[in-house]
Amino acid sequence: MSDVRPGGLSRRRFFGLAGAGTAGVIAAGAAGGVIGRATAEEPAGSPGALAADDAVPFHGPHQAGIATAVQDRMHTAAFDVTTTDRAALVRLLRRWTEAAALMTAGEPVGPGGALPAVGEAPPDDTGEALGLPAARLTLTFGVGPGLFTEGGRAEGADRFGLAARRPAALVELPGFAGDRLDPARSGGDLVVQACADDPQVAVHAIRNLARIAFGTATVRWSQLGFGRTSSTTPAQATPRNLFGFKDGTNNVGGDDEAALREHVWVDAAADGAPAWVDGGTYLVARRIAMRVETWDRASLADQERITGRTKGTGAPLHPAVRGRPDDAAGRALLEREPVRVRELPPDSHVALAHPDANAGRKILRRGYSFVDGSDGLGRLDAGLFFVAFCRDPRTQYVPLQAKLSRTDAMAEYLVHTGSGLWAVPPGVRAGEYWAQALLEG
Amino acid sequence: MSDVRPGGLSRRRFFGLAGAGTAGVIAAGAAGGVIGRATAEEPAGSPGALAADDAVPFHGPHQAGIATAVQDRMHTAAFDVTTTDRAALVRLLRRWTEAAALMTAGEPVGPGGALPAVGEAPPDDTGEALGLPAARLTLTFGVGPGLFTEGGRAEGADRFGLAARRPAALVELPGFAGDRLDPARSGGDLVVQACADDPQVAVHAIRNLARIAFGTATVRWSQLGFGRTSSTTPAQATPRNLFGFKDGTNNVGGDDEAALREHVWVDAAADGAPAWVDGGTYLVARRIAMRVETWDRASLADQERITGRTKGTGAPLHPAVRGRPDDAAGRALLEREPVRVRELPPDSHVALAHPDANAGRKILRRGYSFVDGSDGLGRLDAGLFFVAFCRDPRTQYVPLQAKLSRTDAMAEYLVHTGSGLWAVPPGVRAGEYWAQALLEG
Repeated sequence: MSDVRPGGLSRRRFFGLAGAGTAGVIAAGAAGGVIGRATAEEPAGSPGALAADDAVPFHGPHQAGIATAVQDRMHTAAFDVTTTDRAALVRLLRRWTEAAALMTAGEPVGPGGALPAVGEAPPDDTGEALGLPAARLTLTFGVGPGLFTEGGRAEGADRFGLAARRPAALVELPGFAGDRLDPARSGGDLVVQACADDPQVAVHAIRNLARIAFGTATVRWSQLGFGRTSSTTPAQATPRNLFGFKDGTNNVGGDDEAALREHVWVDAAADGAPAWVDGGTYLVARRIAMRVETWDRASLADQERITGRTKGTGAPLHPAVRGRPDDAAGRALLEREPVRVRELPPDSHVALAHPDANAGRKILRRGYSFVDGSDGLGRLDAGLFFVAFCRDPRTQYVPLQAKLSRTDAMAEYLVHTGSGLWAVPPGVRAGEYWAQALLEG
Repeated sequence: MSDVRPGGLSRRRFFGLAGAGTAGVIAAGAAGGVIGRATAEEPAGSPGALAADDAVPFHGPHQAGIATAVQDRMHTAAFDVTTTDRAALVRLLRRWTEAAALMTAGEPVGPGGALPAVGEAPPDDTGEALGLPAARLTLTFGVGPGLFTEGGRAEGADRFGLAARRPAALVELPGFAGDRLDPARSGGDLVVQACADDPQVAVHAIRNLARIAFGTATVRWSQLGFGRTSSTTPAQATPRNLFGFKDGTNNVGGDDEAALREHVWVDAAADGAPAWVDGGTYLVARRIAMRVETWDRASLADQERITGRTKGTGAPLHPAVRGRPDDAAGRALLEREPVRVRELPPDSHVALAHPDANAGRKILRRGYSFVDGSDGLGRLDAGLFFVAFCRDPRTQYVPLQAKLSRTDAMAEYLVHTGSGLWAVPPGVRAGEYWAQALLEG
């Protein structure tokens, strides 16, 4: 990765080359109206500003942001394609892919970057990430059923001539018990999930992709999330969800190659899928509002029975341990006699969601918590933006959610308010663009 | 600060005492349905988990969260008081203050904490911050005009008998040009600003205060913000706003005691203010939607002229430097001939907002960026949650904003969608509660 590109400076090298900033002096305002003495403020070329080891490789057999170690923050956006011109769609995907490769490397969007040499044109990059590192940004792209013209869109049937290439697994998700889906938070012809350790970097990425899409695709909805807790947190701690329970464990670990092959990556030949999705996967997103105020009125014992875990350490509820299973006696018992799924409360979340209760089926969960202000009734609009990647949603997510929505004791406290399913193409090589094999294969 | 309290474990000591977690083992799901072997997962007693040096002192002459070095994340909530019983209001403020002292120290809300010994009652703490450090959490409390019964509230006149104690400076803010205020995002009888380096810690704090308020006060609105960028960022870099410009400099620095005395802290005797606000201040909040899509279509030169700074380093626009004032020649010129405010483009933001253009009046700015999804028209609902603290809004914020709203070239790109003003009482000593001198003085 080069530090200096034609037409623009590297985002991270910017301060090292451009020298000391003076913003602090402007605002401090020396007496007499003198502002802007060129006093050093930024640590030019500081090690933090130049570190390149926080960039996640963009190119590869699979897209990043799936098996990648989970970042602190997420900004996901779904787009409606507003053109019916296939060439315009191809141009968008090519420009998006080029921009994504740059931004994930910590570079501004090209060719002019944020500070073009000629100031009389709008910059190609909006600039709010200047000076910020790559922050492990990943951009993960998917295409929804709408691109193949389903769902009664006004554009009519098969606007891009792609209907024959629609994967059978790219279904419209069925309705589930307890769904209260908002169409304005659901679906979308295209989706981009931006994850980074810095919210400004994730927001910058989505914003610049939305800007590139102007005239071709428009943001249908976007969602911010958090959830891994900051770097001040013990490195290995499992994050807690907004019910206060540990909930960051994936059914499939991002470093478990065998499990990824079995449960996440599409094998087109084996799965009867079109070639363009070979090595890709499917992204399920569900915006799940959590009725935290109601949950908070449940007793600790009820919360633990509903979850199937203790709230303290996240240990399974042992049938022989009444009361507080997190103490030394409880842990010693667990050590001697591990809990089996069938011994958990049968309607508890863990008992129903565990792979052992689902014929061994697993998904790769990668969700984030959200708080979107309040709901107008004095309650926080808070919950989980559930994200899962799976090889075939018809046999993995759909049956699991159908069961959970009917029988999970936790379902009483959850309302699904947004939903979407997208096919995620495999990764790209340099010079390729996202979903190229779909449009040209 | 004790690590173990009666009735509850310290949030940060929790793992050290409770031992290794097992959540990872549950989810990994060994063959045969065995789950929950007590395998170590959490680094019990790791230095990060036990560090206490990230707690900001809660007690003191002034409330924290004003002069405190700005944290990474913000969650601010405004509340409507639903009771007319003064004793219930006092109980709320006492319970809030006790909870705030605990949470800012990294402790769970008491007395039972998140994991009460008796599981058959709802926990006193919702638990999602268990295991997280204090993360420099500050909670800053203020009272709005509504507590003194203005604004035509149904509760009628002077419901708490406090009208005579209303500070003259606690006005209803006048309307400004370009305002498009949403009542559901404006005002509120009480406000609490939570700032922390971890969003989960800030969200946990507001949620637990909202929970304590149940039956007495209800959340009117809440707003999340970010903006300081994460710890992976160069430590001293001035943050950029969503227009891509440096915008994190305060007119009053939090470590400038003289400026704080002159521009921020109320001196009741000198200011003719009631005694209960002595040593306090006033909090102005404005939710400012930024028309980023329109801004992004402006040329770099226009963006810089509107702002009055260069986009690169944030240097003032030097009248003798055409084109790119961030290069070596431009910086050398600035060094020789500092810019005066009157030499900047007269309608530029810096020229109008600079203290030298405002009779030396300054405010302490402490705002955060926000992105609240999209607006239904394909645009990001993004902007600045502007927060300022000042000694008298009538002579500081109001005239400044009246001028900016009429003449600032940037105003074309801004829409104020939320607004509020609150009197911020001074800090509390141990055993006191927020605004005690207002209710008992």
